[in-house]
Amino acid sequence: MNAVNLSISLSSVSELWQPKTVARFNGNEVMVAKVLGSYPWHKHENTDDLFLVLKGSITIEMRDHSVRLRPGEMFVVPKGVEHRPVAAEEAHLILIEPLDTAKNGTTVV
Amino acid sequence: MNAVNLSISLSSVSELWQPKTVARFNGNEVMVAKVLGSYPWHKHENTDDLFLVLKGSITIEMRDHSVRLRPGEMFVVPKGVEHRPVAAEEAHLILIEPLDTAKNGTTVV
Repeated sequence: MNAVNLSISLSSVSELWQPKTVARFNGNEVMVAKVLGSYPWHKHENTDDLFLVLKGSITIEMRDHSVRLRPGEMFVVPKGVEHRPVAAEEAHLILIEPLDTAKNGTTVV
Repeated sequence: MNAVNLSISLSSVSELWQPKTVARFNGNEVMVAKVLGSYPWHKHENTDDLFLVLKGSITIEMRDHSVRLRPGEMFVVPKGVEHRPVAAEEAHLILIEPLDTAKNGTTVV
């Protein structure tokens, strides 16, 4: 039972697109990640996918529209919805997913 | 499916200790709250309680120790643990709990 400082947690993340778990609660895990560029199109059949931007900005591309997120903004990609996060510059995020969710979902490229 | 701007969501919160739900995902709800002063001692028998500070600072008092949280810091109070959030000045928080969790848990004062 320790406090988690998100900046300090992020400082130990060196690989892009490699979320690091910083806390667990009620069967979910809270992760921090550094991202840059685009991630493959994918979807999670059974789980919603929460993104909260801490630094920089990302665009969550979906097949029918996109959502731009800046620091202090969050978005939930509903289960089953194909999406692709894109960051033109390095961005830092919180991700929350149920434990054991496949990080890359079902690739649909 | 809209982005949630946490600052804008908080600007519509006028009552202290009255969390406002801003998103739902996987059976959880993400809430924002403004707090000041101390909340009664309580516990949630079956659910962990996630606090993330956006502005100001809070202290999560537990029976055996306390945790101070500043902006960008989070803490999970495990289920069953008696706790009392305290804020000497107004603080803004994210709270995440399973849907339908009683907000005040079981009061144990």
